[in-house]
Amino acid sequence: MAYRTLDWTLSDGILTLTLNRPDQLNAFTVEMANELEDAFGRASADPAVRAIIVTGAGRAFCAGMDLNRTGNVFGLDETLQPTLADMDERLDDPAIHSGVRDTGGRVTLSIFNCTKPVIAAINGPAVGIGATMTLAMDVRLASEKARIGFVFGKLGIVPEACSSWFLPRIVGLSQALEWCYRADLLDAEEAHRGGLVKAVLPADRLLPEAHALARRFVDQRSPVAIALTRQMLYRNAAQPHPLAAHKIDSLAMFYTSRQDGKEGVQAFLEKRTPRFTATVPDDLPPFYKEWAK
Amino acid sequence: MAYRTLDWTLSDGILTLTLNRPDQLNAFTVEMANELEDAFGRASADPAVRAIIVTGAGRAFCAGMDLNRTGNVFGLDETLQPTLADMDERLDDPAIHSGVRDTGGRVTLSIFNCTKPVIAAINGPAVGIGATMTLAMDVRLASEKARIGFVFGKLGIVPEACSSWFLPRIVGLSQALEWCYRADLLDAEEAHRGGLVKAVLPADRLLPEAHALARRFVDQRSPVAIALTRQMLYRNAAQPHPLAAHKIDSLAMFYTSRQDGKEGVQAFLEKRTPRFTATVPDDLPPFYKEWAK
Amino acid sequence: MAYRTLDWTLSDGILTLTLNRPDQLNAFTVEMANELEDAFGRASADPAVRAIIVTGAGRAFCAGMDLNRTGNVFGLDETLQPTLADMDERLDDPAIHSGVRDTGGRVTLSIFNCTKPVIAAINGPAVGIGATMTLAMDVRLASEKARIGFVFGKLGIVPEACSSWFLPRIVGLSQALEWCYRADLLDAEEAHRGGLVKAVLPADRLLPEAHALARRFVDQRSPVAIALTRQMLYRNAAQPHPLAAHKIDSLAMFYTSRQDGKEGVQAFLEKRTPRFTATVPDDLPPFYKEWAK
Repeated sequence: MAYRTLDWTLSDGILTLTLNRPDQLNAFTVEMANELEDAFGRASADPAVRAIIVTGAGRAFCAGMDLNRTGNVFGLDETLQPTLADMDERLDDPAIHSGVRDTGGRVTLSIFNCTKPVIAAINGPAVGIGATMTLAMDVRLASEKARIGFVFGKLGIVPEACSSWFLPRIVGLSQALEWCYRADLLDAEEAHRGGLVKAVLPADRLLPEAHALARRFVDQRSPVAIALTRQMLYRNAAQPHPLAAHKIDSLAMFYTSRQDGKEGVQAFLEKRTPRFTATVPDDLPPFYKEWAK
Repeated sequence: MAYRTLDWTLSDGILTLTLNRPDQLNAFTVEMANELEDAFGRASADPAVRAIIVTGAGRAFCAGMDLNRTGNVFGLDETLQPTLADMDERLDDPAIHSGVRDTGGRVTLSIFNCTKPVIAAINGPAVGIGATMTLAMDVRLASEKARIGFVFGKLGIVPEACSSWFLPRIVGLSQALEWCYRADLLDAEEAHRGGLVKAVLPADRLLPEAHALARRFVDQRSPVAIALTRQMLYRNAAQPHPLAAHKIDSLAMFYTSRQDGKEGVQAFLEKRTPRFTATVPDDLPPFYKEWAK
Repeated sequence: MAYRTLDWTLSDGILTLTLNRPDQLNAFTVEMANELEDAFGRASADPAVRAIIVTGAGRAFCAGMDLNRTGNVFGLDETLQPTLADMDERLDDPAIHSGVRDTGGRVTLSIFNCTKPVIAAINGPAVGIGATMTLAMDVRLASEKARIGFVFGKLGIVPEACSSWFLPRIVGLSQALEWCYRADLLDAEEAHRGGLVKAVLPADRLLPEAHALARRFVDQRSPVAIALTRQMLYRNAAQPHPLAAHKIDSLAMFYTSRQDGKEGVQAFLEKRTPRFTATVPDDLPPFYKEWAK
């Protein structure tokens, strides 16, 4: 892949996406937003990608929106007066798409829709959109040098990238409110105590541990089962009644059980390693597209 | 009760339901699913049942779906091509009910609808449906010998029994994703650290502690107030706005305050033990059926 | 403000609301409910209020509903037979408003709608509505002398004040169920371990620490950004899909970025302290009223 702000390295099923503007501490630009949105779409569509690790080149993960640009740093069209109705009815209208929509949210929605597990390997400062983009990733590992900041309040703006949806689901509502109000940099230990990161690691162990964890999500796993599991956990948990989960569970179990599930049960009974053959996205079951649109 | 896969023992208001196929490590069958669904319905309908403990006979809690059956172990009708619309419109159509619906989900929905508190006493391996059925129970206690596995990914199938709805509400979204991707056996300590089980106990303390906790949910409690509390916490918390809770709170407070609540306040003022007389399900308030259908 | 049950003290942007019936351990009455509802509305409408601390006068925070009143302590009209439809269609009908609606819920809904951060400084016993009113506050700090009790089950009544919506979002579903079933007094340490309170402090450090935390939510913060952040975290997190958050994020970022956000970015680039000028509620963006109604 020829990206200008990202490095795409695929090895043995594991894609490492590296935010790659090290001289600017990987600061986020509209170009990076577009490339990340494209990369998560491609990773979803590529059967060779089985899991994704996101990290930063150099000493930072992502220092936030690149504020050193001239003029309107957020790329918004200040001549507009957008309303709730505009967002409900004209979301893909070019004027709204490029002049109003939060670029960070376009990225996290593409991660939300991804069919492969995503691990954030936070190697250094992750600030603003650098922090909120990791919330749509499934597991966060942090280097001892990581600093995580939901700093929007100090800039007179708000947490974005759908972070108000993701953060309370990860750390609870009260911790989410406190961190966003404080708007300061959390060190790795506080992020760990608050439940935001799974583990704090010495800097040189971060990527090896991220790869080891990704391998556990990939080896001897059915990619179709993993893709459905990811979407079920994000989508079903947010429904008002467990019956919604039961309907999807039933379809997902029905279709996987006559596909890789048949081999999985057979291998279990024969006490051998399964040989799964279904791929993503080609072998996702027929209800998937309508459900996860 | 004459069940073939369960033991039903009711003593002093506390029902102990024991999964009872010890020679098969209490492996789950369609018969067990039907009997569990029946048992939770009966427990809800029986005023003599005030709280429920679920445990396993012998050394396992439940080793998961009984895969040693010949043919189609999940009991699904492979000639069908079910769609989202089928699940929305034909859920109780016999073809969908027996040929498509996840049996584990039928069980956890019956636990969800139960009007009595439910405690899981996990005495040994709880794997697959053996793990996910406990998620619809209110509190999980584990023996040191417990092993809990959301192992579906290793079999090429998906987490079921509405676990995608329950698990993130108990342990948070990130822990839920990691455990389902890893698909391995968690020991009791990891399950405890992750917030899945309330306590890890020596094997011989498990049932005594479960009974002691159940007693605290029963003695000097109004069964109507407890039933409403259970349904309110599961149902209201999943609503998009607290106003939905306020409407139910108001009705539940209104009707309980002129029933057992009157005696409760009187006893408080007189510094004596209350004598509650309302029973479940007979004295549930008039709005209950329409609300919790 | 001339309240009979509350003390309103505003100092340097921080409002301290003190429940002020110390001889009755600040027990809750219909008058206190009305005054709290009024006070949170005024605090939202007053640009001089930037953050709110709620505490109790004397040795208690709030000992719960004042049960020592004669007659119908809950103020409900027992001649009615309210239904779900009444709550959906007649919520502000005077008969329903004063004869059926839970007074605690009217208070927590007014806190939910508040545009300023709210900190509970729990200085002593917080029982019944004294416990549940704090759940709609953003952060809870506890004195070592705090005791917190969701004791409704012992009185034959149910948890109210929308606590079934708030409590599982703060401490998880299983802990919420267990505490409500047990219905006993939690000491400050158990409340802390369960994630209900952020910190346990010596009695004489409680108010100073609450003020220090409030200052971190106020100094060099944009009141508009903070108000939007609060409402986004409560409302967006409860939606079934992150797209709902993306729509609000986009509008909130759009309007703040051409208001205090412009100054915030400029100050950041010039390495100086920002001078935010927008106020709440006057400068809330045009979509706010329609969205957060």
